[in-house]
Amino acid sequence: MSSMETIRSVEPIVVALPREVPYLGPLDPGERVNERGYFVRAGNRTIYPVFDRSVLVKITSTDGKVGWGETYGIVAPQAVVAIVEDVLAPRLIGREPDDVAAVWEELYALMRVRGHWSGFFTDALAGVDIALWDLKGKLRQRPVYELLGGKRRARIPAYASGLPRATLDERVALARELCAQGFRGVKFAAAISGEGVIDEMRALRKALGADVDVMVDLHWRYTPAEAIALIEALEPWHPY
Amino acid sequence: MSSMETIRSVEPIVVALPREVPYLGPLDPGERVNERGYFVRAGNRTIYPVFDRSVLVKITSTDGKVGWGETYGIVAPQAVVAIVEDVLAPRLIGREPDDVAAVWEELYALMRVRGHWSGFFTDALAGVDIALWDLKGKLRQRPVYELLGGKRRARIPAYASGLPRATLDERVALARELCAQGFRGVKFAAAISGEGVIDEMRALRKALGADVDVMVDLHWRYTPAEAIALIEALEPWHPY
Repeated sequence: MSSMETIRSVEPIVVALPREVPYLGPLDPGERVNERGYFVRAGNRTIYPVFDRSVLVKITSTDGKVGWGETYGIVAPQAVVAIVEDVLAPRLIGREPDDVAAVWEELYALMRVRGHWSGFFTDALAGVDIALWDLKGKLRQRPVYELLGGKRRARIPAYASGLPRATLDERVALARELCAQGFRGVKFAAAISGEGVIDEMRALRKALGADVDVMVDLHWRYTPAEAIALIEALEPWHPY
Repeated sequence: MSSMETIRSVEPIVVALPREVPYLGPLDPGERVNERGYFVRAGNRTIYPVFDRSVLVKITSTDGKVGWGETYGIVAPQAVVAIVEDVLAPRLIGREPDDVAAVWEELYALMRVRGHWSGFFTDALAGVDIALWDLKGKLRQRPVYELLGGKRRARIPAYASGLPRATLDERVALARELCAQGFRGVKFAAAISGEGVIDEMRALRKALGADVDVMVDLHWRYTPAEAIALIEALEPWHPY
């Protein structure tokens, strides 16, 4: 490593992009967007923005190299910004970005006894962690996979997550289109499956054939007994 | 209820107070306060400010009545502020502060599928929830305990949490003082128990007699096996 380079700054940056259709699909009747750009899906009672948004984390070393990280910013991104600026950045500035795993342990421990093992604190920590690995790779002039133990694969299969269309017919048509683009897997969302999860799984399997992985995100909607019954009903259509 | 009164505003307010001695006790050698006013305790790797700080939540109804809530603000209070302003306040303004338990369920559900069942989101929600109950009580001109099912007790026993002094002798002296003030229970902290948890429990029991509850916060320092062995070693001194 180009040794003695230390961390000069840690900056959280909120980035938003418009979307043609909100994540998961168009709004149902009765779902309204508020002045902050959020709406609540009746299907899973969860808040979503109508745009895409992330918090980027930019970590700069004393020699001007930059590591980039990214984390969740879809809701209350200023919470992540506050945690990075108030808690995480002051513990990193002036240090070498070297023992990244040990740094993660140390930063995670800061709030562990207060129950921050998920949520905004770990979101912020994830963005910082990614940026530290990126910076370490740049300082060592090595790809991060080498620092993590070596390359294990040359390609990673991708699947299309979500079919953001209003009707089952439109979702099936979009899935066909995505598979024509090369995806070998698609996931649909129980929260907007107005025609029902079983009908949607059946329609997608019939449209896409046996070789495509078809997944459904059940969005925590079901009790264990309901989920088991639903999964049994899905079995003939070979969910992934 | 003076019906039709709705929520006009929801304001998070950060309040800080100086402390003579940091929470849990004086700093150990090597523990340094950074420019944000935080230090990390070696004993439990947790971040603390040198001051006290809360986030108050002020909810005002259209007729000018005010409900107050309070929540954790010791670390990154602006995270709680962002969550209240961006997510929770817009969902409350214009509504009647009536079905508070149902409102809690609704607000909790907003981020449930993303794993926010602890941490900053639930801290913010707690402050809002307390303020809603307080406001509902004021609008109905009833004490909150009546709204929660009726009075169950007239007094609540209090214990003194933490003995913020540097040495065991000073902690024992402080515990005596607190019991002389009327406390019937004291809790000490493994994170600063330099002389050891067993010695501290023994010294406190001997100093305070059999009628005082003596507790120790183990601060997540021990594995299950270590904790069981420690608790067995404490048994002769009757921990609470």
